[in-house]
Amino acid sequence: MASGCPFGHGAAAAGDHVDPISDDGVYYAEYLGLDKLLTAQHPASAAHGVEAHDEMLFIIIHQTYELWFKQILHELHSVIQIFSQDRIPEKAMGLVVHRLKRIDEIQRILIDQISILETMHPLDFLDFRSFLTPASGFQSFQFRILENLLGIESKHRFQLQKTAYLGYFKAEHQELLRKSEHISLLRLVEKWLERTPFLEFEGWRFKDEFRRTVLQMHQADRDRVSRDAHSTEEHKNLQLQMIDQTIEQFESLFDEEKHAEMVAAGTRRLSIRALQAALLISLYRDEPLFHVPFQILTGLLQLDENISLWRFRHTQMVHRMLGSKIGTGGSSGYRYLKSTTSDRYKVFLDFYNLSSFLIPRSHLPPLPLEAREQLDFYFTMAASPAAPATP
Amino acid sequence: MASGCPFGHGAAAAGDHVDPISDDGVYYAEYLGLDKLLTAQHPASAAHGVEAHDEMLFIIIHQTYELWFKQILHELHSVIQIFSQDRIPEKAMGLVVHRLKRIDEIQRILIDQISILETMHPLDFLDFRSFLTPASGFQSFQFRILENLLGIESKHRFQLQKTAYLGYFKAEHQELLRKSEHISLLRLVEKWLERTPFLEFEGWRFKDEFRRTVLQMHQADRDRVSRDAHSTEEHKNLQLQMIDQTIEQFESLFDEEKHAEMVAAGTRRLSIRALQAALLISLYRDEPLFHVPFQILTGLLQLDENISLWRFRHTQMVHRMLGSKIGTGGSSGYRYLKSTTSDRYKVFLDFYNLSSFLIPRSHLPPLPLEAREQLDFYFTMAASPAAPATP
Amino acid sequence: MASGCPFGHGAAAAGDHVDPISDDGVYYAEYLGLDKLLTAQHPASAAHGVEAHDEMLFIIIHQTYELWFKQILHELHSVIQIFSQDRIPEKAMGLVVHRLKRIDEIQRILIDQISILETMHPLDFLDFRSFLTPASGFQSFQFRILENLLGIESKHRFQLQKTAYLGYFKAEHQELLRKSEHISLLRLVEKWLERTPFLEFEGWRFKDEFRRTVLQMHQADRDRVSRDAHSTEEHKNLQLQMIDQTIEQFESLFDEEKHAEMVAAGTRRLSIRALQAALLISLYRDEPLFHVPFQILTGLLQLDENISLWRFRHTQMVHRMLGSKIGTGGSSGYRYLKSTTSDRYKVFLDFYNLSSFLIPRSHLPPLPLEAREQLDFYFTMAASPAAPATP
Amino acid sequence: MASGCPFGHGAAAAGDHVDPISDDGVYYAEYLGLDKLLTAQHPASAAHGVEAHDEMLFIIIHQTYELWFKQILHELHSVIQIFSQDRIPEKAMGLVVHRLKRIDEIQRILIDQISILETMHPLDFLDFRSFLTPASGFQSFQFRILENLLGIESKHRFQLQKTAYLGYFKAEHQELLRKSEHISLLRLVEKWLERTPFLEFEGWRFKDEFRRTVLQMHQADRDRVSRDAHSTEEHKNLQLQMIDQTIEQFESLFDEEKHAEMVAAGTRRLSIRALQAALLISLYRDEPLFHVPFQILTGLLQLDENISLWRFRHTQMVHRMLGSKIGTGGSSGYRYLKSTTSDRYKVFLDFYNLSSFLIPRSHLPPLPLEAREQLDFYFTMAASPAAPATP
Repeated sequence: MASGCPFGHGAAAAGDHVDPISDDGVYYAEYLGLDKLLTAQHPASAAHGVEAHDEMLFIIIHQTYELWFKQILHELHSVIQIFSQDRIPEKAMGLVVHRLKRIDEIQRILIDQISILETMHPLDFLDFRSFLTPASGFQSFQFRILENLLGIESKHRFQLQKTAYLGYFKAEHQELLRKSEHISLLRLVEKWLERTPFLEFEGWRFKDEFRRTVLQMHQADRDRVSRDAHSTEEHKNLQLQMIDQTIEQFESLFDEEKHAEMVAAGTRRLSIRALQAALLISLYRDEPLFHVPFQILTGLLQLDENISLWRFRHTQMVHRMLGSKIGTGGSSGYRYLKSTTSDRYKVFLDFYNLSSFLIPRSHLPPLPLEAREQLDFYFTMAASPAAPATP
Repeated sequence: MASGCPFGHGAAAAGDHVDPISDDGVYYAEYLGLDKLLTAQHPASAAHGVEAHDEMLFIIIHQTYELWFKQILHELHSVIQIFSQDRIPEKAMGLVVHRLKRIDEIQRILIDQISILETMHPLDFLDFRSFLTPASGFQSFQFRILENLLGIESKHRFQLQKTAYLGYFKAEHQELLRKSEHISLLRLVEKWLERTPFLEFEGWRFKDEFRRTVLQMHQADRDRVSRDAHSTEEHKNLQLQMIDQTIEQFESLFDEEKHAEMVAAGTRRLSIRALQAALLISLYRDEPLFHVPFQILTGLLQLDENISLWRFRHTQMVHRMLGSKIGTGGSSGYRYLKSTTSDRYKVFLDFYNLSSFLIPRSHLPPLPLEAREQLDFYFTMAASPAAPATP
Repeated sequence: MASGCPFGHGAAAAGDHVDPISDDGVYYAEYLGLDKLLTAQHPASAAHGVEAHDEMLFIIIHQTYELWFKQILHELHSVIQIFSQDRIPEKAMGLVVHRLKRIDEIQRILIDQISILETMHPLDFLDFRSFLTPASGFQSFQFRILENLLGIESKHRFQLQKTAYLGYFKAEHQELLRKSEHISLLRLVEKWLERTPFLEFEGWRFKDEFRRTVLQMHQADRDRVSRDAHSTEEHKNLQLQMIDQTIEQFESLFDEEKHAEMVAAGTRRLSIRALQAALLISLYRDEPLFHVPFQILTGLLQLDENISLWRFRHTQMVHRMLGSKIGTGGSSGYRYLKSTTSDRYKVFLDFYNLSSFLIPRSHLPPLPLEAREQLDFYFTMAASPAAPATP
Repeated sequence: MASGCPFGHGAAAAGDHVDPISDDGVYYAEYLGLDKLLTAQHPASAAHGVEAHDEMLFIIIHQTYELWFKQILHELHSVIQIFSQDRIPEKAMGLVVHRLKRIDEIQRILIDQISILETMHPLDFLDFRSFLTPASGFQSFQFRILENLLGIESKHRFQLQKTAYLGYFKAEHQELLRKSEHISLLRLVEKWLERTPFLEFEGWRFKDEFRRTVLQMHQADRDRVSRDAHSTEEHKNLQLQMIDQTIEQFESLFDEEKHAEMVAAGTRRLSIRALQAALLISLYRDEPLFHVPFQILTGLLQLDENISLWRFRHTQMVHRMLGSKIGTGGSSGYRYLKSTTSDRYKVFLDFYNLSSFLIPRSHLPPLPLEAREQLDFYFTMAASPAAPATP
């Protein structure tokens, strides 16, 4: 404990009179493996005898991406481990929020640092581009593992030429990728949601209460429209038709068959019970006990949105860098990438779409009294008998 | 040329029907040295048998910093090489602007990504901090080389305990550091500035013209104050005193002796001639020929400011992480770092202070006619006789 | 000149002994119109008697957007004015670069600050959303004017229901919008590009030289493929087919008819001559005289890309906020917005696609000697006879 | 509920067939007060007949700052209101976290958007700077109110010339400022912390337990040093001396007198009991019940750090813009601003310094059993008897 504080670019050892390079102590460069790290840049242009200044940037930015992917996977693995437990302790839920927040901060940087690569002009890229054939950013196995772990399934992937995605990887990476196909944060979160208490509570069933409320609201809407003396018949019919459509949309929350169709069509991912639970948490998020679960839903949504933003930013950069050269298959790199910015690649798509099913707080069916009590903390701070005591 | 486009995370090979993992072609993971890169993380906590989750982040963020430092040095070396030439071709000046812009984009990320490290709480840092003794971020030899190359001299450095800064490094790094002490972008830029044409031009001398103008402006100020009927004597005297002080400040631009005093005191860095040249470029920056030189001055200033911003952000992070533990020397890491955010560590300090000497464009002494003509381009686009021709 | 420095949040008057609130002087709050500005927030929820905390954020963030739109229009108008001149002085070109850079910095903030609005949860939006009917962000007339001024034409716009876009605006704004439809930065830039010298130069014609070079390169590619002893016939044919497709793509640069087809299809915007000029500038950007023109092309591309990024970020936020409620027309706000992130809304689309036509510097046809001389500056700094003189 | 979604820049009314500009509905431009907002820019240069292009930027960026200050104050007022309650419900604590997070997002933008103003060169500022005398950014009453509400006291302020800070404001703003001096988030948070349960708990007293632990750790350190056979006497003494200093520092946590001295010296702000509570929360933050309180401490620290970052960034910008003109008082705007980046202006200084007092989790004295139970939630999700039920 008496030891100084390492790291902090100069913070170190300041007044500690410790020999800064003692043989048995840790040395910055060794600790960080800088001998490996700073000698891992091998420009292909130099190997071909025509060194291109900008290839160094190209290598280094990709290396920082890969380091950050490793870090994201580190956090993601710990989140997955937590969600893999049968009974997730409250303590662990706090960690999930914290680690999702960290992933968010990393992703912000991943998105922003594309600006660095954009300082490389297409003409400068041409100086070494041909030496890299047939390597492709698609071969970032860490990013593909990330997609797999989150829950993107093979069937959602657009296929490049006729090669299945595994065909782009060497054997050792194929193995890693295959392993990651068997884990899915989406499915773990689904299970966790399905276990949410209060979906049923001593006779009170959320889905019934919610459905009744929604129907009442729509009926009130219908009545208001029908009574409207200033409106034409045509306009009224149009409005009633819209209300009916909205009801129909809401019904997909309760109707297993409709839900199954949407799952088959790829517009829904979660089970109907998990979806209802996510809705419950979103609607009653002000309840203290739902505070952390709601932060988790929001964190997962943010993670997903950040990937979309990164994909889009990346796509624009590629458009600048490569134009829209058309290949024999009629497709271009730019077009492939653009396709991945669609909803098809959103893992937590249901959390986005949840907003369609929110109703104003003022209309929310009240939770049963007992549930409310359990949702509040047993112990609130200010109530502590010890509080007024003086130190 | 027929080859596909490598990289772009999926942009690749899309329609190219090339085998994506042919044996003689380039493979993403190999090109980037991922086997080295992704196995270069060795948490000390794990080695001590008490794995701390957050140490991975600590290692990886420092590694990304070191990678980016390498990239900045790559750009800086090319800029230094350009400025080392006796006669710098115009083409090269464009490159300097471009590479300074790239450094700026990198630095923005270096500053912003501190937010990632701040997701590590001090208590989490404690889990592995003691294993790192006596390593220190001060031992980032790449950052120290960067400082040296820019032009920070040993005499400007605050000393940590009694150890000279080289004492923090192992032999191989000491050698690199010593070599970098002999190169200084500041001094190269100084020489380049001293060669600026138009400081003297067939009898017209910028410094004389500028000085005369400034004195006239101040005299007009004095007259206005003296004539002011609404002002008390006391107020007038105060104002006259202020004008005199301003004149005195301006005189430091022309007075070799005063200038030398300021250099000795560390409040000025450049030679008086280089300073005048920087002022000339700043004042007449609208002239096309000064367009690029002015972008260079601005780029260097930005680089310096970014380092200051990074230092300060870093300092705040360290304050959060370590508090202000007081060492035996009465100093703390936080305090040392804070000291480096002072003007003493600004290399291009004179470019900041230049603003004190600007005068409104409307008062600028006109450049001699011939100089103006040479400053404009010989050939302007719209004047091209070829222009009206149809394709 | 003796006066203190206003503004800088405290920078003021520090040692100047001026009365900080003299009656005839400028007062911060008055100068900025804060009485108007800070009383221009009128939450509709409060007016309806159910104040929603988050509506203030909703209003204020939209107000900052509108202020920044005003600033972007201010810069854009000055750029348009410059490009409207028949003969654009070099000085002015520097200004264009500078102002595009400023727009870039503003746009970065516009994109990033969406994160602020995303702290408003959909349920909080519900608290006041219904009070805003039928107002729409589409009614930001400043943003629509911006689109018009850049060069988005009515025919490129996706139509909302059956109402033409002007139908969303009140009379005074319709007038402003109509006026802005007659100005197009795209068209002005096109004219400027068409006047580029060196497209023809005393018998040397860029398009002929470039075309010849490209055909030679492709012929070399064909020969290499045909001679390849290790390749199967099938593979060879595939490769030759690809080369032919590339040639065909290049031909669209020279063939007026093909070009016209692409313009009609909306995949090209500029005239063929302007496109060739843009290509010329991009290929020979290292020549000093092309330095500034190339910065302008890059600046315009960046502006366009930033709008795309903003649209996409905005779209994601709307998806979170509103889900994907399906309207009677079968369309949702989210889907409409998503459609605007397509290439159809890229004004400087041709500058993106230019990359498809770049060839390595090593293959570039040399500029004719005289042109090269004129492209370099008449006067380079270090050549100044005055340079070696001592101060 | 059938109504469309307003706002979302185009999201609107898409398929809703509502007349977008009905007379009784809300119109975007009116809702946002755009007639006021977009006519509130009055460049002084134009009034003086010499319109300076860049003054518009100067006005608009300051206006966006003021709008955001208003928003921050809006959030801050709600936080203050929550902390003003005697018994703060758990629900409200969640809101505090949420609103601090929003302030954080706003502050990130305030810091970043300084880059926009830096596109204005000092020479361009000179074009209108003299027209603004004697206005000063220091006169941003909203920012001064923000400082007051947070808890910066008059005695901590550096004085500009001899004028007390109120002297810079007109009567109506002085009144607002005076009112804000009586509210202090720092003091409210202090009271809240003092009420933290578990500082004493049925005979278990945190401060006693913690102190005992720390003393044991230090004794162990002393023993280790004394026993070290490889160390010289001199080195041993130095180390023992350091340990003793550390103990002394820790004692300031328990010694009312020492604490009072530090408060008087301005190096501490909170009461000793509040400080102990903040330490307790930080050390045991993994306990679910401390999750939200710890998020609050972190949020307040972040808010404070962001202000520091903004001040520093602002200071650098002013240095660029104004140089370091020396006033009669020997002070410059730049120097004044720089002084505000010191610890003196950190309101939640104690939260930074808390890190000095953290000890590794492995050494933490266990909470008494009963306390632990109460700290965990009464009800954990997975334990719900309802959970296994099928929908």
